[in-house]
Amino acid sequence: MAERTSEVVVIGGGLIGLAIAWRLAADGIQVTVCDPTPGSRTSAVAAGMLAPVTEVEYGEDELLALNLASVAAWPDFAAELESLTGQSAGLNRTGTLSVAYDVDDAAALRRLADYQRRLGLDVEELSGREARKREPLLAAGVSGGVWVPGDHSVDNRQAVSALLRATELTGVQLERQQVARVLTAGTTAVGVELEDGSTIRSSQIVAATGPWSAQLKGIPEELRPPVRPVKGEVLRLRVPEAYRPALHHTVRATTRGFSVYLVPRPGGELVVGATTSELGYDTRVLAGGVFSLLRDARMVLPITDELELVETVAGLRPATPDNAPILGPSGLDGLLWATGHYRNGVLLTPVTASLIAETVQTGTVPDLAAPFLVSRFATGEVMPKVAR
Amino acid sequence: MAERTSEVVVIGGGLIGLAIAWRLAADGIQVTVCDPTPGSRTSAVAAGMLAPVTEVEYGEDELLALNLASVAAWPDFAAELESLTGQSAGLNRTGTLSVAYDVDDAAALRRLADYQRRLGLDVEELSGREARKREPLLAAGVSGGVWVPGDHSVDNRQAVSALLRATELTGVQLERQQVARVLTAGTTAVGVELEDGSTIRSSQIVAATGPWSAQLKGIPEELRPPVRPVKGEVLRLRVPEAYRPALHHTVRATTRGFSVYLVPRPGGELVVGATTSELGYDTRVLAGGVFSLLRDARMVLPITDELELVETVAGLRPATPDNAPILGPSGLDGLLWATGHYRNGVLLTPVTASLIAETVQTGTVPDLAAPFLVSRFATGEVMPKVAR
Repeated sequence: MAERTSEVVVIGGGLIGLAIAWRLAADGIQVTVCDPTPGSRTSAVAAGMLAPVTEVEYGEDELLALNLASVAAWPDFAAELESLTGQSAGLNRTGTLSVAYDVDDAAALRRLADYQRRLGLDVEELSGREARKREPLLAAGVSGGVWVPGDHSVDNRQAVSALLRATELTGVQLERQQVARVLTAGTTAVGVELEDGSTIRSSQIVAATGPWSAQLKGIPEELRPPVRPVKGEVLRLRVPEAYRPALHHTVRATTRGFSVYLVPRPGGELVVGATTSELGYDTRVLAGGVFSLLRDARMVLPITDELELVETVAGLRPATPDNAPILGPSGLDGLLWATGHYRNGVLLTPVTASLIAETVQTGTVPDLAAPFLVSRFATGEVMPKVAR
Repeated sequence: MAERTSEVVVIGGGLIGLAIAWRLAADGIQVTVCDPTPGSRTSAVAAGMLAPVTEVEYGEDELLALNLASVAAWPDFAAELESLTGQSAGLNRTGTLSVAYDVDDAAALRRLADYQRRLGLDVEELSGREARKREPLLAAGVSGGVWVPGDHSVDNRQAVSALLRATELTGVQLERQQVARVLTAGTTAVGVELEDGSTIRSSQIVAATGPWSAQLKGIPEELRPPVRPVKGEVLRLRVPEAYRPALHHTVRATTRGFSVYLVPRPGGELVVGATTSELGYDTRVLAGGVFSLLRDARMVLPITDELELVETVAGLRPATPDNAPILGPSGLDGLLWATGHYRNGVLLTPVTASLIAETVQTGTVPDLAAPFLVSRFATGEVMPKVAR
């Protein structure tokens, strides 16, 4: 079988893998990305919210810092991508309006706003009337809101398309095959074997394998990352010309305890997401998932009923035990992880690309990435002590 | 431009048009069917219920007689089609269970059952418990039911496929083009012009043009049939192996005044229908339509939530002012209507094919078809007096 070499091999051509490859190739490094269908799975299903503030969770301060760094990095990242490719990177700087349906929802939203303010985040509490002033088509029942000017969104499919073009223009080799296994010599990763049996030798391998990370073959059992798939269903609606724009901003809503978000795109698309189910690698779109999204969306935006349902789709989020990504050394020399981004893959694309590119080139882990080493999940002697 | 001839031209290759063409060709008549995409519109969207009893409406006795004749004709029609083609015609003789959700729904169902019994139809009233005995997955809240052993269903897509094959085997010419206009000489139809400008001369034309009947060009304004499109959305769900069969019979339900039906297919498909909207020729699937179908289906069959949503689709029913079809002479010599079947196209396919084939061959309208002449809609002198 043929044997090739590449300075860096990136396993997985989702947004994360493509962005890392582009960053490295732009620095003159020879990169090969292996993916049978790049950008077609998790990265194609996402709604693309850049929501470090609205999605902040109590007690996840280090993740918040990473998320804020990445939302701040998006405008330059998008501009560079657009100037290279001539394509839109899909960034929509619309701000986000969180709204509450009933009084319990409003109380929960206020508590979160208090927390967000204590963290120094830019949020503004609104009455129901003020919320409807920003978004006139919201239901009369909306009882309150929080305006978050810094949370935006990205059309993830445009971003995939621009990144594919950017990797092409910077000379990244795209190998449209599944990686069958990582090849090792002792405790060092030395390349990958593809599904056709051919191999690519490489001294630097980046696994951007998302929900399939724990399944990557050739990694010793004890070094497998604790990444599991969490299914999410998403709807894509089309707003007729006469009603555009149905929404001006991303709207997150809590309706009787249920969460739903509505992300408008400039062309009239409205993305509604997302369910959360622990069903392994099942990507069937279930009737109950579609029902709950429509139920919640029409409760806050009644005109939802009049919009065309263009697409129903399900994808898999790469989840970790602490909801934060896994970045950097794997315990096998020559293999880095860039995975576990859970709900924040689109958001974390720019910062992940920078951090991993820096780690590849310097051999050291930048401070911002340090809290996200896989070794944080080590129990006893099984997980490796990773050099920093 | 080329000029061809055909003893009979059928405009429209839906179930009705294909069945008429097959019947005529089987009798040795040379037939051409014109349709750019046969079987792909209304006939592909339908759920395929054969429901003369469960869908009976107060005061539609002549339509009931026609419907009963056609449900009685389906077994032989299917058997003949299957023996000719070696394909299934899609007939599923499962019977139908009508169920009611709340007490108001149950009262309405009982009133209808009384009416059905007075008409001599075979119906059996059931308690909620008896209904659940027939269909164990029905919701505990189902408060009553009516068992209708003679109402069945047809997999309309299988029927289309078998009829396409049958027309092929009997030498029907399929012209995959839109008819641009009917050609006339005085008050006689003499052929059709196709969209490429070519013509087919024929002394017998059958317009099986469904929701597009009033748009058929070349027909004098005053002879246009009062057929309008009524949009319906339909869902196709997939029952996982472990839950099959989720239903043994067609289930019709009234849930808080809303109607929904669930039609199981042997392969695990479950068809849920149908919305009713007067939106012209709009065939967008609207979020509100999908929502209402899911809401009602899961209320009577809670396991709906766990089924895969495979397809959402909208089609157009050819509706008439009295909900009955338009069969036979059009007022133009040489042009017959076979249209306006509204919600009963699949059901009425066998009887329509027989009646129209007989009219073509004998020049007279059979008694069963007599109530369904277009002339019943005549106002003053505008509508023609049609010879019988």
